Amino acid sequence: MKKVVLAYSGGLDTSFCLKYLKNEKQLEVHTILINTGGFDTEELNAIEKRAYELGSAQHINLDIIDHYYEKAIKFLVFGNVLKNNTYPLSVSAERVFQAIETVKYAKKIGASAIAHGSTGAGNDQIRFDLIFQTIAPELEIITPIRDLKLSRQEEVDYLQKNGVDYSWEKAQYSINKGIWGTSVGGKETLTSNLSLPESAYPSQLQKTESEKITLHFKKGEIIGINDEFDKPTAIITQLEKLASAFAIGRDIHVGDTIIGIKGRVGFEAAAPLIILKAHHLLEKHTLGKWQQYWKEQLGNWYGMLFHEGQFLDPVMRNIETFLEDTQKNVTGTVTVTLKPYHFSLDGIESEHDLMNSKFGQYGEINNAWTADDAKGFIKILGNAQSIYSQVNSIDYD
Amino acid sequence: MKKVVLAYSGGLDTSFCLKYLKNEKQLEVHTILINTGGFDTEELNAIEKRAYELGSAQHINLDIIDHYYEKAIKFLVFGNVLKNNTYPLSVSAERVFQAIETVKYAKKIGASAIAHGSTGAGNDQIRFDLIFQTIAPELEIITPIRDLKLSRQEEVDYLQKNGVDYSWEKAQYSINKGIWGTSVGGKETLTSNLSLPESAYPSQLQKTESEKITLHFKKGEIIGINDEFDKPTAIITQLEKLASAFAIGRDIHVGDTIIGIKGRVGFEAAAPLIILKAHHLLEKHTLGKWQQYWKEQLGNWYGMLFHEGQFLDPVMRNIETFLEDTQKNVTGTVTVTLKPYHFSLDGIESEHDLMNSKFGQYGEINNAWTADDAKGFIKILGNAQSIYSQVNSIDYD
Amino acid sequence: MKKVVLAYSGGLDTSFCLKYLKNEKQLEVHTILINTGGFDTEELNAIEKRAYELGSAQHINLDIIDHYYEKAIKFLVFGNVLKNNTYPLSVSAERVFQAIETVKYAKKIGASAIAHGSTGAGNDQIRFDLIFQTIAPELEIITPIRDLKLSRQEEVDYLQKNGVDYSWEKAQYSINKGIWGTSVGGKETLTSNLSLPESAYPSQLQKTESEKITLHFKKGEIIGINDEFDKPTAIITQLEKLASAFAIGRDIHVGDTIIGIKGRVGFEAAAPLIILKAHHLLEKHTLGKWQQYWKEQLGNWYGMLFHEGQFLDPVMRNIETFLEDTQKNVTGTVTVTLKPYHFSLDGIESEHDLMNSKFGQYGEINNAWTADDAKGFIKILGNAQSIYSQVNSIDYD
Amino acid sequence: MKKVVLAYSGGLDTSFCLKYLKNEKQLEVHTILINTGGFDTEELNAIEKRAYELGSAQHINLDIIDHYYEKAIKFLVFGNVLKNNTYPLSVSAERVFQAIETVKYAKKIGASAIAHGSTGAGNDQIRFDLIFQTIAPELEIITPIRDLKLSRQEEVDYLQKNGVDYSWEKAQYSINKGIWGTSVGGKETLTSNLSLPESAYPSQLQKTESEKITLHFKKGEIIGINDEFDKPTAIITQLEKLASAFAIGRDIHVGDTIIGIKGRVGFEAAAPLIILKAHHLLEKHTLGKWQQYWKEQLGNWYGMLFHEGQFLDPVMRNIETFLEDTQKNVTGTVTVTLKPYHFSLDGIESEHDLMNSKFGQYGEINNAWTADDAKGFIKILGNAQSIYSQVNSIDYD
Repeated sequence: MKKVVLAYSGGLDTSFCLKYLKNEKQLEVHTILINTGGFDTEELNAIEKRAYELGSAQHINLDIIDHYYEKAIKFLVFGNVLKNNTYPLSVSAERVFQAIETVKYAKKIGASAIAHGSTGAGNDQIRFDLIFQTIAPELEIITPIRDLKLSRQEEVDYLQKNGVDYSWEKAQYSINKGIWGTSVGGKETLTSNLSLPESAYPSQLQKTESEKITLHFKKGEIIGINDEFDKPTAIITQLEKLASAFAIGRDIHVGDTIIGIKGRVGFEAAAPLIILKAHHLLEKHTLGKWQQYWKEQLGNWYGMLFHEGQFLDPVMRNIETFLEDTQKNVTGTVTVTLKPYHFSLDGIESEHDLMNSKFGQYGEINNAWTADDAKGFIKILGNAQSIYSQVNSIDYD
Repeated sequence: MKKVVLAYSGGLDTSFCLKYLKNEKQLEVHTILINTGGFDTEELNAIEKRAYELGSAQHINLDIIDHYYEKAIKFLVFGNVLKNNTYPLSVSAERVFQAIETVKYAKKIGASAIAHGSTGAGNDQIRFDLIFQTIAPELEIITPIRDLKLSRQEEVDYLQKNGVDYSWEKAQYSINKGIWGTSVGGKETLTSNLSLPESAYPSQLQKTESEKITLHFKKGEIIGINDEFDKPTAIITQLEKLASAFAIGRDIHVGDTIIGIKGRVGFEAAAPLIILKAHHLLEKHTLGKWQQYWKEQLGNWYGMLFHEGQFLDPVMRNIETFLEDTQKNVTGTVTVTLKPYHFSLDGIESEHDLMNSKFGQYGEINNAWTADDAKGFIKILGNAQSIYSQVNSIDYD
Repeated sequence: MKKVVLAYSGGLDTSFCLKYLKNEKQLEVHTILINTGGFDTEELNAIEKRAYELGSAQHINLDIIDHYYEKAIKFLVFGNVLKNNTYPLSVSAERVFQAIETVKYAKKIGASAIAHGSTGAGNDQIRFDLIFQTIAPELEIITPIRDLKLSRQEEVDYLQKNGVDYSWEKAQYSINKGIWGTSVGGKETLTSNLSLPESAYPSQLQKTESEKITLHFKKGEIIGINDEFDKPTAIITQLEKLASAFAIGRDIHVGDTIIGIKGRVGFEAAAPLIILKAHHLLEKHTLGKWQQYWKEQLGNWYGMLFHEGQFLDPVMRNIETFLEDTQKNVTGTVTVTLKPYHFSLDGIESEHDLMNSKFGQYGEINNAWTADDAKGFIKILGNAQSIYSQVNSIDYD
Repeated sequence: MKKVVLAYSGGLDTSFCLKYLKNEKQLEVHTILINTGGFDTEELNAIEKRAYELGSAQHINLDIIDHYYEKAIKFLVFGNVLKNNTYPLSVSAERVFQAIETVKYAKKIGASAIAHGSTGAGNDQIRFDLIFQTIAPELEIITPIRDLKLSRQEEVDYLQKNGVDYSWEKAQYSINKGIWGTSVGGKETLTSNLSLPESAYPSQLQKTESEKITLHFKKGEIIGINDEFDKPTAIITQLEKLASAFAIGRDIHVGDTIIGIKGRVGFEAAAPLIILKAHHLLEKHTLGKWQQYWKEQLGNWYGMLFHEGQFLDPVMRNIETFLEDTQKNVTGTVTVTLKPYHFSLDGIESEHDLMNSKFGQYGEINNAWTADDAKGFIKILGNAQSIYSQVNSIDYD
């Protein structure tokens, strides 16, 4: 029997796919759940159980959190990546890595096809297919949801007819959780004018007293919090727990999808937003003006291609190399104050801090140059404008 | 007697300049205060009185708020300009326009020199001198504070010796106020690690209940609030009053100064930040992907050159033309919720909204294309990566 | 009977389409040839005659040369557009305008479909379809060549079977001619290593003595040659005649096609290359540094989207506005020397020339500043690097 | 006696400096000539002899050609750097390295000052001083030519009065030669409209029959010519000899100088231009679209900062890392045809060539996708434009 690997999440769509591929297509369906930080053990066990109940030939839960950090999140931090100045790529980045791992597993078990449950109206189908095509052009791609365009009810009915009778209560929102944030879509996000209600977000406000924390960075990577040090993914998880009690990091991303329509999605990502902003502040103190300028250009581009599933474009590797090279001196501590629904950055300490009173204090004292130096500087700095103005007899008004 | 025009603010530095230029340099000193929204009538009268007491041959207060909006703020909004992703150019932009107006006045009254009170350690000297040099190369530039490098006490002593005995209580912070925000410098901002205390900011929290407001934009310009319409500067002022009661819009800008050192300055700019973010959201719905991309490039560059005093570089006019041309459809209403210390954007309404369910709903329904279209799209979208991967036998891991 | 408008060129592919659509699809086929400068009256008459012989219900030849200049070529010159630093978009630009005019004609005569003869392996199908979809989504697009994937011989056979017996001698090269250059594809261009033989190019070397000419520009547009003035398209035609006698302007463009594969095409474009380089030189003298910088960014992007058929992306209009705004002072005369196979630029004359010895002569005399000014300038220009170097104890080697 | 190191070239200006610093300033003058490929042994010996005659305490000739290639030229090739699309940085790049080596020598021999012969009107003073300030802020910088603003005749008179009576025949042009090209300034280059006469260029046309050569690249570096392999600097030298016999590589660079005026300089750089263009062609075949795009951005920026003496800006190291990372597959052979005064590129061969007929042939055959794939691709590619067009009821005309 032909083997297919199905990226399985336990939800209605992929449950339908599992049953459908087995019954209608007579495939040996192997299911895989790739955990990027969104599932705890209990959830993973429940999903495994359900996979077998629905007829999975074999199910595995694969934890790739540290690998995902090393290959992706690290660079998103280096690049201060916020899509459209808002969204930390909570879903987009992990989808790419789920695709890669799915292919690797399919090759390992000798499958001849690969399946996913994405619709034809979103970005995920592109993230999956682009990766599949590129690294395993020999594998067939099977996408029942996209092809059949079934309604939710039709899926439930099909499953029931086939003896599966879970209560698929219609969740009001479609939720996707991973270490780099949780997305929340549905209802209000399908409009342009409504915001999500508080209750739609996964975390609720628990603390009202502000709290100061310190974050420690080494060569651009988060390595500690409040003087305790651990691997980055552990720090991220710890910070998320701390900060989500303040209901920090909620927003709605409005973007141009890969398929050309506008899309809107809510998200909650306390740790990612705090880390990105703290990292950025540390860079403002330790990097030169043009380093910051080009990091912004390349970081944004990296985020755009990543978001659009083009992670395997060769320029992505070149940009990662660039970003990593800029992080040599991005080492130090950032103090952050957590408050209900928001946070503020207090300041930084770093031995690479370029704000150094030995040379001068902004607006106050010039130690490293004289008034005449400043005049000469301005004189020549203005040459081009003066010449332009005089040659063209510009009249200012 | 030689006439000089002094840009006068009523503070210690420019008061010293006034007395010094008159007594030591035997100049006929004409003082001018150019109001960009930071002074009310009472303050203006007090400054005028002081100017005459100190020996001004003639003092004028010049209100340029609307002109300044038309020539500068408008474009800062079009370009969503936040220097280093933080600072709305509260001081930098107005300094340039104060320089231009000072020159125009100097020419009008036939002065042969122009004076300002900037030190040799900041950006303002450059903003002033670059403008002066470019549009009035024939005028001498006189800068006593920069040249003499006097301490505060030496200035006070000089004034006392010359019969001026105001109480120059040392303000803890140097404050600069205008319609596009108030800057707060000193003490903590001279360090890298400390934030400003609440009390250092001009506005204090007065409201704790959140409040929804609507902002109306037409071709990128703010034209109304809560269904009331007025000229943009009036709306900005009204919004500032409303939002500063929530203590919104505080932050610290860390930047690369024009003279090469790092500088740090606090600011409060409730209206500017809300308008910029609301405008940006409206653009996300009404502009195409590449319009947004290039607006960001050019807007940031515009902000950088403006901040650095290069407002008269000819490229600035070209960028303004570009930015204005992108605003044709940026018309609509944005709903904002004001909360203590922060705000959130609820959504927008616009007849130019490109998020339109007729074509599809992101992730849900594809009306304008089929599953096969999507597959063909992804197939060809991935061609280059597939070819690259196969030609170079890339091994993914 | 259903009406279809076929973009007809008189060649084998579109002749096949004409017969095929009439005979097999029972369509009333209206043919249109849109002349962008590649056809003379005799050729146009022959094509018209053939169209009717093959069964066109009605044929028109439409001259859009001046319109095409005004809407496209003008901006390609303003932007100094050379795709991949080589190719003046000879074919790409005109294809877009042929598509637009074809739609306009289809709407005018009430056709319900539109047909073109492009294959599925090239860029032209995309240029045609993108325009069609966008401005006339209600029209069906019919593409027999792409759909049937027939060989050349199968097309000839079909025509013969249907009583059409022209001698379709297999041209060795596929040639496309317009006012902005002639493309030459086939044989060698399908390899990576071979260049086209001299004989493949439309013009052959006729002159060996070099010849000086002057080109006159006004606000960026070519308005005269050798002190004779005419409309831009007339000057381009005249210059092409003059310069092609020197066999100037040949090269091979290697590019990334819209469909992701690499493509290679030869071209001859004497007038476009000379005009672009002369215009660029005039800009080097009359524009500021940052105007040139941003023109290059936006011009290249404009060329890329144009080449890729995305002419109707809204950012294109914004870029055109920007480019036009930069041309205010690009007025003057450029002297060019034509030589066998190449040309050189001698120099320019312009009242807006910013190279003006009143301020200084490069490397020789500094009139507008002193040695001390220069020292102060360099001192402060170097501040950031000095601080970086000292804070980080950089060791140079 | 205080030691100073003088960057000495044997010309009038630095000869004056040598005598002047010794006689008027009572300094112990150590002279150094840093050879970047412009001097042969005979010339070096003559310069050494003259240095001693004029009173040098010690003279050394330092060959840094290979070091200079490794640290600079290599990256200029990777980045396809041509300033203003014209100039390979023949002088700018070597000046920076001469500055660095001068400082290293000064530190080695314990000098307390460093001197150069640049005027106050050019770029070289900035290149020298910026490096000196940054890596040796403790050394005094002495610049007699800039400070005294003497005429040529005054320098000759001073030397004569001090017993130095060489015939300083006024060379019509100021020539600067190095491995990456020779600059030619003076007379015509001080105007905007005149080109240099043939005779002003160092090489004269010797060959009229065209000649095919092959250039071999490995990871972006030139490693061979006509199947003979050697170190890059040897290949460059060999190619220069071959190609300069065709009088290839002449042009005039018009640029914005660091001091804000426009400057114009002629140059001859046969090998650099051929290598850059051949390398670029090889990249068009072996790199992806976005790799090329970002290489162009960063390469141009690198060239600009390098040209402007900002070689020690930290972003330069990051860009070098990026550029190097893009060169992994830039390996292959380029065939070039040399002709009188110009050259053409025939084609390339590379195992990393992405133009590969297995996937399709541009415009001819689509193997890797179907007509329906193409239609789906175009459909969705056009979504954003269609939506924009319909929402905004755009009327095309």
